[in-house]
Amino acid sequence: MEACNETLNPTRRSWVTTANLSDTDFPIQNLPFGRFRSNSNEPWRIGVAIGDMVLDLKAAGLIHHADMNQLLSMKKEDRVALRVAISNGLKEDTPVHRHAFEQALVAQSSIEMGMPCDVGDYTDFYVGIHHATAVGKLFRPDNPLLPNYKWVPIGYHGRSSTLNVSGTSFPRPCGQVKAPDSEVPTFQPSARLDFELELGVVIGQGNPQGHPISMEDAENHVFGLTLFNDWSARDIQAWEYQPLGPFLSKNFASTLSPWIVTMEALSPFRQKFKRADGEPQPLPYLSSQSNSLQGAFDVKLEVLIQTEAMRQAGLPFERISYSNFTQAAYWTVAQMVTHHTVNGCSLRAGDLFGSGTLSGPKPEQAGSLLELTQGGKQTIALSNGEKRTFLQDGDAIALKGWCEKPGAVRIGFGECVATVMPPSVA
Amino acid sequence: MEACNETLNPTRRSWVTTANLSDTDFPIQNLPFGRFRSNSNEPWRIGVAIGDMVLDLKAAGLIHHADMNQLLSMKKEDRVALRVAISNGLKEDTPVHRHAFEQALVAQSSIEMGMPCDVGDYTDFYVGIHHATAVGKLFRPDNPLLPNYKWVPIGYHGRSSTLNVSGTSFPRPCGQVKAPDSEVPTFQPSARLDFELELGVVIGQGNPQGHPISMEDAENHVFGLTLFNDWSARDIQAWEYQPLGPFLSKNFASTLSPWIVTMEALSPFRQKFKRADGEPQPLPYLSSQSNSLQGAFDVKLEVLIQTEAMRQAGLPFERISYSNFTQAAYWTVAQMVTHHTVNGCSLRAGDLFGSGTLSGPKPEQAGSLLELTQGGKQTIALSNGEKRTFLQDGDAIALKGWCEKPGAVRIGFGECVATVMPPSVA
Repeated sequence: MEACNETLNPTRRSWVTTANLSDTDFPIQNLPFGRFRSNSNEPWRIGVAIGDMVLDLKAAGLIHHADMNQLLSMKKEDRVALRVAISNGLKEDTPVHRHAFEQALVAQSSIEMGMPCDVGDYTDFYVGIHHATAVGKLFRPDNPLLPNYKWVPIGYHGRSSTLNVSGTSFPRPCGQVKAPDSEVPTFQPSARLDFELELGVVIGQGNPQGHPISMEDAENHVFGLTLFNDWSARDIQAWEYQPLGPFLSKNFASTLSPWIVTMEALSPFRQKFKRADGEPQPLPYLSSQSNSLQGAFDVKLEVLIQTEAMRQAGLPFERISYSNFTQAAYWTVAQMVTHHTVNGCSLRAGDLFGSGTLSGPKPEQAGSLLELTQGGKQTIALSNGEKRTFLQDGDAIALKGWCEKPGAVRIGFGECVATVMPPSVA
Repeated sequence: MEACNETLNPTRRSWVTTANLSDTDFPIQNLPFGRFRSNSNEPWRIGVAIGDMVLDLKAAGLIHHADMNQLLSMKKEDRVALRVAISNGLKEDTPVHRHAFEQALVAQSSIEMGMPCDVGDYTDFYVGIHHATAVGKLFRPDNPLLPNYKWVPIGYHGRSSTLNVSGTSFPRPCGQVKAPDSEVPTFQPSARLDFELELGVVIGQGNPQGHPISMEDAENHVFGLTLFNDWSARDIQAWEYQPLGPFLSKNFASTLSPWIVTMEALSPFRQKFKRADGEPQPLPYLSSQSNSLQGAFDVKLEVLIQTEAMRQAGLPFERISYSNFTQAAYWTVAQMVTHHTVNGCSLRAGDLFGSGTLSGPKPEQAGSLLELTQGGKQTIALSNGEKRTFLQDGDAIALKGWCEKPGAVRIGFGECVATVMPPSVA
């Protein structure tokens, strides 16, 4: 890990000078992985972001294939060795590789980003305790959290086929909804379309069926994190979700940022994970000494909106919420991995977990409109005079995520944005 | 379709003489698709079952690749043309192909069957109304069916990575369970392990995201059906499933039969699909004239058990339940497809739907032990003197499915069997 620690040294700078700007998401300490192409006729290539450029790993001679899922399946030691090679070749005054790396650099402005990997299975967790409490309160004011919440890292399976990379717009979903005062449901475009502020967890090396992953080993199976927006149609959800959970209310689209920020890059931002006094301690299979000491990650998060009217008027995205992974999450990434596999379930490289909605403890830190508007009862006001309860056609939602603290270089997650289009069925 | 109709002619016989036996699952009228290999060092090949043999489609010159998902994605016309070519080459007194086909035949006894395709997304529906009613009754005696059941084809997402082909044993899952009289949950092997009698629906040609599939077009996107056992840990399920549905209680293993019985082979066994008087008519998007006239399929089903003691004593599998797709299902295959995509969700070739547990109307026709034993309160007696509430280690469960009626040749689904092994975690 000493070599890896050198890649995190805050004094390290790159000969790619845009990587040394204080506001870049992609300094040399970050080095996130993604898939890109210069035009839609060529296959996806594997790249690492550095400043405003992308390093093509195969062109740079660092790997000999272009299969991201194969890269994700590497053992942690090999992943770290690759990171060290990339960092050493990109650092200022490098004695090696500079010419080969220069030939393998492409401007981010000239490329299209794809889904970062092929996702076999996507699981959405529900680790945001303030979200679970706020949503529960809408249904059960006196008993918002269900009895299992503080014991079980609740999760459910989602749909892989409709995971989209940032920038992919989608039509407003149609479906069955039933008004409380109506005898029968109607079929219509969702009138309560919402976003969900989440992080994505990208699985690295998998496990065979029947072989659970222990807490001590869990993070070795995680490649890194992304931003994740799990769009939700609240009216469809309310009518369909009993007794087997959300289905069409969620599986029309989910948006992922294109860059996987690695666990190595996140390591300076680890925080203590500890249950407050009075909270039940996790069952032994969900406990570990190292996880308690450093299992949480201090990722700062924001939600921004740009309506169609704002876009027409040339107004930028406007912040409507902010949060933080550590404050929001009741369970750690390691606990998600271990719980998911404890029954023998297998994970495969490239599988994705959503964290669940990461609402902060304060009302203005809510990660969904359902919470921000108290179930649609209060509007939120935008500075151009528009109001919103749920999303309108033409609304674009952007998520932002970054890590910063004194003594470390700020790293960012890049872009996670998509626009709601009119329904495709009349 | 005239050429296809000839492949269903009950007088058609094959020069593969075992296909002409009255008790074979695989007469020339069936021709189901699967993947096989002669040993574990070779790649999967695409085959069609005929009697006790398999026809290797590539070796026979009928296709030029070995990619089942590519084959599944064919348009219906091309799929029918392939069926006609296979049937014509296998029929008695064929003027063509016989020599090439003979060279491409392999004995089923000499091969290993694989998963019939790569499943991208797996969705489990809940169309068995007698199952939904019986399970609901255990929780809500006065109001067993939830208000949405007769309007929404209820479904939820399952796990693709733990779908196994028939013959794959799996360890009993461990997980959190909480006794009703206990304050806190414990971690232990499931004590209420169950099977679920289902059919699998294998998607053929997919649809792009944002483009729903209409009822009239729905069956064109279905390649065929399989047997499907969605193993379930009832104690884990009871504690984890609120509010987002089943997760670890289901995703440890599901078992699929290796042969996809095509919609063409099933077509003689179509039946009228009609709502009884007093039942709500489906919303317009779930209605179609052709579906009402012929949307259901008369597939006969059985569940059999062989315990470890029975195996040791040389006793065969013993039937513990029987059912029928038409009687059990409140929604058709076409309605599942259309509902799943009506919000813009995309399906891909090889995606799998489970039907949900297909319990018949009588108590002895229940498709799970949960129902057969009234939630574990009554034992079922086996003829060797053993009793069961839920499954014991060493129990093997086999599903059987077939279609028969006067004037048509019986077709079968082949084998869907797996054995419960001891838990892999102490």
